[in-house]
Amino acid sequence: MVDKKFVYFFGNGKAEGSASQKDILGGKGANLAEMTNLGIPVPAGFTLSTEVCKLYYENNEQYPETLHEEVANNLKKLEKITGKKLGDEKDPLLVSVRSGAAISMPGMMDTILNLGLTDKSVKGIAKKSGNARFAWDAYRRFIQMFGDVAMGVPHAQFEEAIDEIKVEKGVKLDTELDAQDLEKLVNMYKKLYKKYTNTDFPQDPIEQMWGAIDAVFGSWMNERAIKYRAMNAIRGLDGTAVNIQSMVFGNFGNDSGTGVCFSRNPSTGEHKFYGEYLMNAQGEDVVAGIRTPQPIDSLKNENEKVYNQLCEIRDRLERHYRDMQDMEFTVQQGELFLLQTRNGKRTGHAAIRCAVEMEKEHLIDKQTAVMRVTPEQLDQLLHPQISKKAIENSVILTKGLNASPGAACGQIVFTANEADSWVKEGHRVILVRKDTSPEDISGMAVSEGILTATGGMTSHAAVVARGMGRPCVCGAHEIVFDADVVFIGENKFKRGDYITVDGSTGNIYKGQLELSDPEMSENVTTFLSWCDDIRNLSVRKKADGTSLRGFSVRANADQPIDAKHAFDFGAEGIGLCRTEHMFFDRSKLIHFRAMIASTSKEKRKEYLKKILPLQEKDFIGILEAMDGRPVTIRLLDPPLHEFIPHTLTETEELAEYMKTDVTKLQAKLEALREVNPMLGHRGCRLAITYPEIYDMQVEAIALAAADCIKRHLEVDPEIMIPIVCDDDELTIIRKRSEAIINRVFEENSINRTLKIGSMIEVPRGALLADKLAAQADFFSFGTNDLTQMTFAFSRDDASKFLTDYLVQDVLMTDPFKVLDEEGVGQLITIAKEKARSVKPGIKLGICGEHGGDPTSIDFCYRAGLNYVSCSPYRVPIARLAAAQAVLKNY
Amino acid sequence: MVDKKFVYFFGNGKAEGSASQKDILGGKGANLAEMTNLGIPVPAGFTLSTEVCKLYYENNEQYPETLHEEVANNLKKLEKITGKKLGDEKDPLLVSVRSGAAISMPGMMDTILNLGLTDKSVKGIAKKSGNARFAWDAYRRFIQMFGDVAMGVPHAQFEEAIDEIKVEKGVKLDTELDAQDLEKLVNMYKKLYKKYTNTDFPQDPIEQMWGAIDAVFGSWMNERAIKYRAMNAIRGLDGTAVNIQSMVFGNFGNDSGTGVCFSRNPSTGEHKFYGEYLMNAQGEDVVAGIRTPQPIDSLKNENEKVYNQLCEIRDRLERHYRDMQDMEFTVQQGELFLLQTRNGKRTGHAAIRCAVEMEKEHLIDKQTAVMRVTPEQLDQLLHPQISKKAIENSVILTKGLNASPGAACGQIVFTANEADSWVKEGHRVILVRKDTSPEDISGMAVSEGILTATGGMTSHAAVVARGMGRPCVCGAHEIVFDADVVFIGENKFKRGDYITVDGSTGNIYKGQLELSDPEMSENVTTFLSWCDDIRNLSVRKKADGTSLRGFSVRANADQPIDAKHAFDFGAEGIGLCRTEHMFFDRSKLIHFRAMIASTSKEKRKEYLKKILPLQEKDFIGILEAMDGRPVTIRLLDPPLHEFIPHTLTETEELAEYMKTDVTKLQAKLEALREVNPMLGHRGCRLAITYPEIYDMQVEAIALAAADCIKRHLEVDPEIMIPIVCDDDELTIIRKRSEAIINRVFEENSINRTLKIGSMIEVPRGALLADKLAAQADFFSFGTNDLTQMTFAFSRDDASKFLTDYLVQDVLMTDPFKVLDEEGVGQLITIAKEKARSVKPGIKLGICGEHGGDPTSIDFCYRAGLNYVSCSPYRVPIARLAAAQAVLKNY
Repeated sequence: MVDKKFVYFFGNGKAEGSASQKDILGGKGANLAEMTNLGIPVPAGFTLSTEVCKLYYENNEQYPETLHEEVANNLKKLEKITGKKLGDEKDPLLVSVRSGAAISMPGMMDTILNLGLTDKSVKGIAKKSGNARFAWDAYRRFIQMFGDVAMGVPHAQFEEAIDEIKVEKGVKLDTELDAQDLEKLVNMYKKLYKKYTNTDFPQDPIEQMWGAIDAVFGSWMNERAIKYRAMNAIRGLDGTAVNIQSMVFGNFGNDSGTGVCFSRNPSTGEHKFYGEYLMNAQGEDVVAGIRTPQPIDSLKNENEKVYNQLCEIRDRLERHYRDMQDMEFTVQQGELFLLQTRNGKRTGHAAIRCAVEMEKEHLIDKQTAVMRVTPEQLDQLLHPQISKKAIENSVILTKGLNASPGAACGQIVFTANEADSWVKEGHRVILVRKDTSPEDISGMAVSEGILTATGGMTSHAAVVARGMGRPCVCGAHEIVFDADVVFIGENKFKRGDYITVDGSTGNIYKGQLELSDPEMSENVTTFLSWCDDIRNLSVRKKADGTSLRGFSVRANADQPIDAKHAFDFGAEGIGLCRTEHMFFDRSKLIHFRAMIASTSKEKRKEYLKKILPLQEKDFIGILEAMDGRPVTIRLLDPPLHEFIPHTLTETEELAEYMKTDVTKLQAKLEALREVNPMLGHRGCRLAITYPEIYDMQVEAIALAAADCIKRHLEVDPEIMIPIVCDDDELTIIRKRSEAIINRVFEENSINRTLKIGSMIEVPRGALLADKLAAQADFFSFGTNDLTQMTFAFSRDDASKFLTDYLVQDVLMTDPFKVLDEEGVGQLITIAKEKARSVKPGIKLGICGEHGGDPTSIDFCYRAGLNYVSCSPYRVPIARLAAAQAVLKNY
Repeated sequence: MVDKKFVYFFGNGKAEGSASQKDILGGKGANLAEMTNLGIPVPAGFTLSTEVCKLYYENNEQYPETLHEEVANNLKKLEKITGKKLGDEKDPLLVSVRSGAAISMPGMMDTILNLGLTDKSVKGIAKKSGNARFAWDAYRRFIQMFGDVAMGVPHAQFEEAIDEIKVEKGVKLDTELDAQDLEKLVNMYKKLYKKYTNTDFPQDPIEQMWGAIDAVFGSWMNERAIKYRAMNAIRGLDGTAVNIQSMVFGNFGNDSGTGVCFSRNPSTGEHKFYGEYLMNAQGEDVVAGIRTPQPIDSLKNENEKVYNQLCEIRDRLERHYRDMQDMEFTVQQGELFLLQTRNGKRTGHAAIRCAVEMEKEHLIDKQTAVMRVTPEQLDQLLHPQISKKAIENSVILTKGLNASPGAACGQIVFTANEADSWVKEGHRVILVRKDTSPEDISGMAVSEGILTATGGMTSHAAVVARGMGRPCVCGAHEIVFDADVVFIGENKFKRGDYITVDGSTGNIYKGQLELSDPEMSENVTTFLSWCDDIRNLSVRKKADGTSLRGFSVRANADQPIDAKHAFDFGAEGIGLCRTEHMFFDRSKLIHFRAMIASTSKEKRKEYLKKILPLQEKDFIGILEAMDGRPVTIRLLDPPLHEFIPHTLTETEELAEYMKTDVTKLQAKLEALREVNPMLGHRGCRLAITYPEIYDMQVEAIALAAADCIKRHLEVDPEIMIPIVCDDDELTIIRKRSEAIINRVFEENSINRTLKIGSMIEVPRGALLADKLAAQADFFSFGTNDLTQMTFAFSRDDASKFLTDYLVQDVLMTDPFKVLDEEGVGQLITIAKEKARSVKPGIKLGICGEHGGDPTSIDFCYRAGLNYVSCSPYRVPIARLAAAQAVLKNY
């Protein structure tokens, strides 16, 4: 039986592994092997596979029996290739030890350099290099790294020691210490090491090496790494690999150097070699920032041969990996070595530009291009961002929920009315409130950004702000209002003070921070058109001959102007037009309030008659804006409770309008109040008790459609019934609605019908989906409410405990942000199966806030839905996420 | 091919049908056949089967082809047996036509008598009987019945005509009209008939007969009948049968008579012949009440032979049907005929007594006895009822929901404090409020009954009242409070005015009505012990060798006194001990309020420490009361919101107690308010954010158990976690709780564990039941909350629309009263299947208000649950309903 292979060698142009073996070699090891095989100069070395890590933990932290021998054999091979021996007193082999899992993981141990240095071999290096200072500096760095990283000696202790020496000598910079100083420092470090580990610093390089290997594997299960994997939902990895590689030195003299470069500009995406380097320096020195690195172009002047070689390698690696590369290199005494290559991190701008240009260069195809840009990267392009430099010098006041992306700065105002009047006077304002309610909408619309102390990801403020594309931070609990001022964290602000809110991160900053503008460049347009092609798959076939299912993106829009935005952002329809938002408009609110406060059907009908033409006008505007695309209009949804006047003045106004007594009116309004309005008299329940309300709305829709049709415009309105929990609700409302539509259409000599569908947002609706489907032309999952009911979490109150749920890992994500597949998703799947069992072709969509979340969009596609609907400003993100969902689940 | 048989003959001691054929002959027809076969004198006749009705509606209201011929043949047979011919001018056969479905159904057409009378045959009857008045009276009655019942001529028109004649003649009673008057009346009736039907009154008896048959079958689908079947959930019937039977007359002279009798007393159940009769009268005359009927015993003096014959028939029928019989008889010229027998309706008292005594008489076995009493009948015995006589003379003020059974009368008070002080002064009071809240509990406890204007079947008032066994009517919308008075319907009441509330019907009456007391007689105790034997089936085996599943009844009880009641009522454990009710006790509330208003964990712990011994004491009391039976203690469930002080005085008191500033305290309390408390910060969510609360409660339970165990008492406390939506909640709380229990038990040298289980009341909890089951020793379905979340119906607000839902048949029953099998039941079934898939033996119960509802109990047994839990006063009902569920689903 052949023993299992645990160690993979690379060097001298040949490697036992390749880039395809990330699973067992880790990302770093696999790329080192790949580069070696490509003939790119890489210092030789070997990789202990991730399987070792797995077996180590499976076997009570014992290594496989054959491992020590295999490592010894590979070390021998390395010594042969380099012509040096580990621990040799004259010309010792020095190695680096680095961890590297299949996915980069900041929680784990990183790097130990210069391993192999001992009290004896340091002298050999000093002699051989002719640079004693270099040798002792390398040794003291090794002790520090080994002590700190592998053995847990406090980092600060080493820093204190070096400071002590500098004070003693009266110098300020490390570089001012000479060889003797560093030798002294080595002795201090060794004492420190003994003090904390109770052992002498190991003088056997093999012991050093195994100590480092133990430390790497040990770090796989440290708290930080476990937490990191949990937070990022990284599962199914075997463990980390360990890379042991012969050292090269960029600080060997002026013909040496080190640098980092990118095959394209990671900030802009421009196809131009980009990077920086420092001569006579190690990687740390570049990071430390004491010397200013040179732009990569200057290397041409420094050493043209090396520069050209690097350029050639850059081209080869990018062509080979077909992606922008982030490379580390070192030049030792005029010789170039590549130490790492990986796909480069990039900004949203760069991601789009790289993806589009690489496709044009025939490096990648369109599907690959679409997978190269994350929805978050695309999102950066669609909203103003705080400039990087501004963030560095900023003061974070507190952090709330990142409820609506983008950054905004302005002067604090406390009410919607203040927002209105300040903006009229030419100010830019941030509306800061405990929470918002429907009357604040106009004030929200004129504000640059919105900040609330309470409420979660689907609170009123959050939903409205996203709908308006206005940056918003919600549920910032450290905000306390007091008389005429507001405390944000420790700081007190008054009306007119400047703050900056970042709705993408949830951070609140003091003062005015510089913002960068969004842009919808030509690249973005091109990129999104590719996404659309992938989603619109009706004509394409899968390998097995079946058709691929298309996946549409619609928008939630309540007003003609929103619909216009949605159309411009590429929405293929309106998935949710909330008619109640129309009622909060000043011109309609008083009629509506009068209607709900009326005690007779006749009175209610009278007031509804006044609203009818106003609703009709809105519907006409939306239908026109959508140019024939489907528009799903949801009939009145919120509890009457929400329409009750808030102040005595409003009640008096209403009483005057209704010509009634204020006291009587108050009693009637009081009776409308609810203990749990979310579970109260709302949605289609209103149509069972007051059928005249939906009658009016359906008539307005029919009239609007008729008006457009008579002007030869194409329209496709769909009527949606909310809060359905029983098929009889649908039966009753459908019958009434069809009668009204038929009457209006007949009066206008129009021969057609309108689709009538059901929202599924009450658990019972999902559970009875087969019966509902018999009465519905389509379903739309209202996942905001469905999440509320399924979890029994009120979106207005859940912020009180949701943070603790996330911190304690009870929930991995906020279910109002990312759709909960286990519970809510299960109900959606049950509903889908039941509905399709009686009506196989029934159209299914989602119109909750989750419709704009990439993870949730992926679920929706897998669950078999036909479309998602989200706020207009989120449509581009959804177009991308939907395309990626199709590709991932292809 | 033999034609299908549609008509069944009975007569001369032989019938083609039998009592087992109710499905096709209807109840009446089947019993007429059965009696005939038993040799009991029954006027001969024949029955058109329910299949005719079914085919009639399936075939566009056409009869089967062979029907007319079959009816003609049977008529011939009838004429032969009776020796009379239909329509004969000298001695005509007269028949009655009656409907009769398998289940008695008041919505349908009932009876047409004397069919066969025409202008000619009436004279034959007059001559043959020697009683012209009798003949013309029979004819005018026939025209009236046929016209009204079969042809829709308004009943009032006939009444007007007879009044006209009486005025004309100057008499007051119908009996004062002579033959000539009645002949005149016949002419007036015939004119009326023609006016409304546009046809002459039919003179062909065959045409009359088919007219009557058409009318009976037509009535099966009239609006009233459809509504009646829907309301009573009567499904699966083919239709009604039609019984055509030769007439006998009790008004043929002084040797004739008619009566109704019961084989036992239907009011008391006493085994004594009971009934009444009138000589020279028809059935209608008994009902009309103009003459006072004689008690059945007097018949002995009237005609001993007939009386003895009737007694013998009574015995035979009861022995034959093995149930108390309700019989109608007629004596025509000294000859006895039975016209109907059926199982007699009876009061709760009679039902129990009959069941128990018949078992003792070996007429029926115990299982049959248990099926003979409905839960509603048993319920009558357990609560005071308004006496029958009092109801007759009462004024119903309004009607609300019948929230807690039993009747009560007393003086109106408006607050719990008033209730307290009035009762101390010796008054009996009814607490009338808009709604109630936890602070009202002591006031509710001293009131005779509770009446609220808002709230549904599971509102606070309803739940607490049922728990206390206090009569309660909820959601009586017509109650309006105004300053110091209350309007109930149209009537104004002030403090101290008397009203009577009937929690069994929901009616509110003016003044003090006489009440009858409840009793737990020896018969009831015997009867319930039989129920328990049936439920406790662990030792019994089914025919296929498998064991029958037991089905237990537990009670919901929060205090030692409630537990004592529960035990006395036969509860086999406590299924729900709500610990929050303990906090509302005055001695604990201030500590608890201080706890929730504290800003630091240390402060919270300090206040909790003060509650610990008080909770421990309560738990000891409950454990002692239950004498070793399981006690499921639910940890804190309601939102902190509910504990917020209501008045400034209370807040000031609290501030003083906490030695803090009132303004600051108010701000803190304000932050606890919730928009939708039902979906808010409650249940185990409190344990995630403030673990110290559950820690204290678990410690109190462990200490209480330890205290009892050390005193050698048997105890079985079970800890239940509410509002669970994720298995991680259970994992975290279970771990903490087990650590506390282990510590307390170790300190007391006790070696045992306590069961820890989960409530399933959040839809996500049900959907994730497999994961939850891994962390739970048992589940209890909290169907109140599960109904709220599944329907998205707030129990506090749903009364605003639920009435309309019931009136419009969107829902057949109030889902807070009868468990909704389709939706909520589906979730329970999903949860059961998931839970048992990972833990086959997991104990499942229900502790919502549905645990006391017979229909819901039947579902729980079918769904595979192990027990139901309900309020103590409901336990006897549940014991019966559970036994019936076992028998029905055996």
